[in-house]
Amino acid sequence: MLEYDGTDFAGFQVQRGRPTVQNEIEGAIGRIVGEPVRVVGAGRTDAGVHALGQVVSFTTESRLGLETWGRALNAHLPATIAVREVVEKEPGFHARFSATSREYRYTILNRPARAAIGRQYHWHRPGALDVARMDRVARGIVGRHDFAAFAGATGDRLGRPNTVRTVMRVDCRREDQEVVFEVTADAFLPHMVRNLVGTLVLAGRDQLDEAGMLAILASRDRARAGPTAPPHGLCLVRVNYGDSKG
Amino acid sequence: MLEYDGTDFAGFQVQRGRPTVQNEIEGAIGRIVGEPVRVVGAGRTDAGVHALGQVVSFTTESRLGLETWGRALNAHLPATIAVREVVEKEPGFHARFSATSREYRYTILNRPARAAIGRQYHWHRPGALDVARMDRVARGIVGRHDFAAFAGATGDRLGRPNTVRTVMRVDCRREDQEVVFEVTADAFLPHMVRNLVGTLVLAGRDQLDEAGMLAILASRDRARAGPTAPPHGLCLVRVNYGDSKG
Repeated sequence: MLEYDGTDFAGFQVQRGRPTVQNEIEGAIGRIVGEPVRVVGAGRTDAGVHALGQVVSFTTESRLGLETWGRALNAHLPATIAVREVVEKEPGFHARFSATSREYRYTILNRPARAAIGRQYHWHRPGALDVARMDRVARGIVGRHDFAAFAGATGDRLGRPNTVRTVMRVDCRREDQEVVFEVTADAFLPHMVRNLVGTLVLAGRDQLDEAGMLAILASRDRARAGPTAPPHGLCLVRVNYGDSKG
Repeated sequence: MLEYDGTDFAGFQVQRGRPTVQNEIEGAIGRIVGEPVRVVGAGRTDAGVHALGQVVSFTTESRLGLETWGRALNAHLPATIAVREVVEKEPGFHARFSATSREYRYTILNRPARAAIGRQYHWHRPGALDVARMDRVARGIVGRHDFAAFAGATGDRLGRPNTVRTVMRVDCRREDQEVVFEVTADAFLPHMVRNLVGTLVLAGRDQLDEAGMLAILASRDRARAGPTAPPHGLCLVRVNYGDSKG
């Protein structure tokens, strides 16, 4: 399990010639074991998106102990990526396919003045937000639905992608000057959380109610939903694996 | 009142050819009023030190309203500096000389693994820390004392500086994985909070008790105190002006 500050990364997934989290991790492991290693990540976070509990898996014949792995990885990784826990899993474990759900958190700073401290980790929205209404509207997405209305462009996919996902839990609340939105689902479509947040902000400004949210969902039309919130407010908080933890 | 992320600044005070907070603020005000302006800051924070409640004063004949000043300043300042409040004060108000006390907070991340998120704002100390003992030892400095044992080098001063200060309040507590040290004093010597924190960490590792702290204080000998904690865990939280707020 690892955390990272996504500010300076072009996302999680390997891209040639651009700094990504996966590039850094594969580089660090490669330097430790002396041969190229490919890793799998549970969530393919976008450029600028952070993680507190990303899970990555790889296979190695190395006989290093788990604590040694943790220390060695943190010694080889940049300050923007930190390994929090290293565990050994049964053969066949796959960080992405074995995961049963992911939890994301989106943080809005809701006050007149922008912030300098922590500005990398929230979206500044100065106007008043009705958070109770945002929470009511958000609850309309819980369950198994076609989330096409909240799916970002998926230019790298062939044919019609499956856009049905199951949202297990949502919560939107005020914490002092911040508005925090949390959502757990079996899996997420590209930009799904950021599109939900952009839509919930409309609700917070009294431009959308519960019925409107259900109509957007039913339309499966991306043009009906709100704008995409910026990436830096988003964080992959946790990945769940049924009973066992990755 | 303003906050800033000190990570990329060479401190608050103007230095020729180096990025400082004061340089940025004077530049922003100068662009707004069209002539050079000099500002005074309540706390001359070191390179890498942050602020949530720094206070800065300047004199202008501008007729801009206070809200307009706030918006204009935030528009002209970099993302690393944010103005939180603009108020008009009586003639003779001086952000530094009118201040009656300053409050600093130092944050230690106390867990085995280092962090990526928020790493700019804490000092990572992985070993166990006895925070109750740190708090007991810290309380020994409350009152009016000669803090020479905790004063950093003051190479730019002539003669023997006055190193007597009055500490009104200290508090050291655990907040989840963080150890937070707060201290309020009429004024601080260079590096004083960071030298106190470096010394309190010795207490947290059972290498210093209350009597030892009092002996260090009485010695007025910098060599007796602990090492200087790094700047990035430190934050100027608030400046007080008796009854009125700057």
